[in-house]
Amino acid sequence: MLDFTYYAPTKVLFGKGRHREAGAVIKEYGFKKIMLQYGKGSIKKSGLYDEIMESLKENGIEVVEMGGVEPNPKLSFVREAAEAAKAEKVEMILAVGGGSVIDSSKATACGAVTERDVWDFSSRKATPAAALPVGCVLTISAAGSEMSSSCVLTNTEINVKRGFNSDFNRCRFAICNPELTYTVSKYQTACGIVDIMSHTMERYFTVCEPTDLTDRIAEGLLKAVISAGKVLMSEPDNYEARATVMWASSLSHNDLTGCGRENSLAEHQLEHALSGKYDFIAHGAGLAVLFPAWARFVCKANPSRFAQFAERVFDVSGKDELSAAESCAGCMEEYFKTLGMPSRLREFGIPEDSEALAELCTFGRTRTVKSYVDLDYDKIRQIFAGCH
Amino acid sequence: MLDFTYYAPTKVLFGKGRHREAGAVIKEYGFKKIMLQYGKGSIKKSGLYDEIMESLKENGIEVVEMGGVEPNPKLSFVREAAEAAKAEKVEMILAVGGGSVIDSSKATACGAVTERDVWDFSSRKATPAAALPVGCVLTISAAGSEMSSSCVLTNTEINVKRGFNSDFNRCRFAICNPELTYTVSKYQTACGIVDIMSHTMERYFTVCEPTDLTDRIAEGLLKAVISAGKVLMSEPDNYEARATVMWASSLSHNDLTGCGRENSLAEHQLEHALSGKYDFIAHGAGLAVLFPAWARFVCKANPSRFAQFAERVFDVSGKDELSAAESCAGCMEEYFKTLGMPSRLREFGIPEDSEALAELCTFGRTRTVKSYVDLDYDKIRQIFAGCH
Repeated sequence: MLDFTYYAPTKVLFGKGRHREAGAVIKEYGFKKIMLQYGKGSIKKSGLYDEIMESLKENGIEVVEMGGVEPNPKLSFVREAAEAAKAEKVEMILAVGGGSVIDSSKATACGAVTERDVWDFSSRKATPAAALPVGCVLTISAAGSEMSSSCVLTNTEINVKRGFNSDFNRCRFAICNPELTYTVSKYQTACGIVDIMSHTMERYFTVCEPTDLTDRIAEGLLKAVISAGKVLMSEPDNYEARATVMWASSLSHNDLTGCGRENSLAEHQLEHALSGKYDFIAHGAGLAVLFPAWARFVCKANPSRFAQFAERVFDVSGKDELSAAESCAGCMEEYFKTLGMPSRLREFGIPEDSEALAELCTFGRTRTVKSYVDLDYDKIRQIFAGCH
Repeated sequence: MLDFTYYAPTKVLFGKGRHREAGAVIKEYGFKKIMLQYGKGSIKKSGLYDEIMESLKENGIEVVEMGGVEPNPKLSFVREAAEAAKAEKVEMILAVGGGSVIDSSKATACGAVTERDVWDFSSRKATPAAALPVGCVLTISAAGSEMSSSCVLTNTEINVKRGFNSDFNRCRFAICNPELTYTVSKYQTACGIVDIMSHTMERYFTVCEPTDLTDRIAEGLLKAVISAGKVLMSEPDNYEARATVMWASSLSHNDLTGCGRENSLAEHQLEHALSGKYDFIAHGAGLAVLFPAWARFVCKANPSRFAQFAERVFDVSGKDELSAAESCAGCMEEYFKTLGMPSRLREFGIPEDSEALAELCTFGRTRTVKSYVDLDYDKIRQIFAGCH
């Protein structure tokens, strides 16, 4: 087990109807003027917006609205929001939405207390030294941003999607009501499940000393998510399954499933190149194609790890180590298919584009991505080619 | 899954040599004068005391010492420490030790900012409204106090051991270096493992709706601890096994293993009566006797739950549900025996005392303890009798 620091201070208010506590919670923290960020209006159609606003009003909280966050949240929006937060002197930011809205709020919170451009954090020019507090009401189980230290932005000027990590990105509180996800489409539900599994699997598949406890937690979480995912394909309003997936979303990306392990999130780095360029590819759908292709490419470099995974997560039995390891990619692909996920990039209607994608992912061949085998431009190109 | 609030804000600094960061961490928080609590001097023999003091001195931190915390920490000591903390105006309390020292420090922290007697919190007369921050350097893996909201004190005036829960009892930080536990005796190591397992099993065995994810995490944690415990009986300085048990200690009692479930900790309530009266019985050793006896007594009230546990944790297979359920108590007992734990109360050299213990546990027959069957005086007496 490698040394680690674990810090997941977000207070999670989990359960039915709990979004109505938003105003009371914010009042308890003592905030009187907040910025409310949300997406493209689905929360208005569902009535959630009204309920949140009522809860805020009841508690005497003044609201600066900043709706219109796009999927793969844009740097330009965040710049504008940070300026508004400064001008209006808001004390905290409430994100009502999924990972995009939360990430947009986190970046805004960092930008609102500095003269720097927010992109400096993504590009590693600087690290945040402070931020406004962020709270969220989660409406989709996927990104895990509600408890994570990460925040991913897309800079459309240079077509780059990139994240930065900071403890200032930890939400102060997260209100998680699984009922709010009943209306999430089957496709988006499936994308979320793939994203959650990826957060766990990427921490699992790293070069590392043994970490029995972390392995067991990760494997258990995956088994629960796989099972809940199957239920949700036919019963979208099954509370237990929605709750399992929502809580797994938080635990998959709050670092619990990676304690004592290297933390490289290789597949996310490949996927960011993909959906950075092809904005219409949902992050989870991209991962559903990439993960099995990556596993197929690298499993021979650590067959015992892949074999353990196949046995404990997918109940593969009676195979020798190498065969069990090699079965992983197929098991993942089969499961993702049952969720209606694609297994090849061509299904998105895009051309074979492995060279350009590998170029993007390596920032013009200037970096390698850590994995069982370090992935340089050429290896990444081969993985993308294998996805087509 | 029941609604829940999860809040585990303790920053965990886990790994080799990390106790030397104590001073730097405290300085980072901005505290300049602290109270140092520790036990009966083993940290002086081991050299840990000197290393901590050096780290504090290097960072210019003034120290008020309060050594001599006893196992099953005493209210009288806490009262004295709280007075000292007030008089000396310390800004935080650093606990260097195990659960007793940390609990003593937590109670002191609550007592230092109120005019109330600390026992008012244990006796439920009042709830803490504030507390000094507490940090710890953990030296034994057992109680999980380093991340828990609980704090257990013994009032020797009335022979009662009782805990109270509060978010003010959450440590600000916990420094967890598994190497510090190499010198913990085989017996104390085993007691700790039983305590850790009990924290998880007590949350597992509650009347409840299904909680697949929480179950899987609990089962995985138990499997890892059971395996590491076996290793430690012959290899007390096996880092991986020590690390597994130490991290499991924190996760077993920070509420993770109980999310969405009822939280009654029935067996701990029975054991507090036992070691409250017989101070020489180590908490874990008492639990090792009580848990199988409790399981034997109640398993028929929920055979499917016990059968799931037997299959997933102890790899019991090929039995019908009731037989699998009934095998749980034996599996626990057998495992605890491999750790050198007792399986009967008479092994402690105490007389059959089930009536008095049941009387103590029910506060003179004024309460029942929640479990699969509510445990009133008579049922508790039968369980204690079954332990003899």
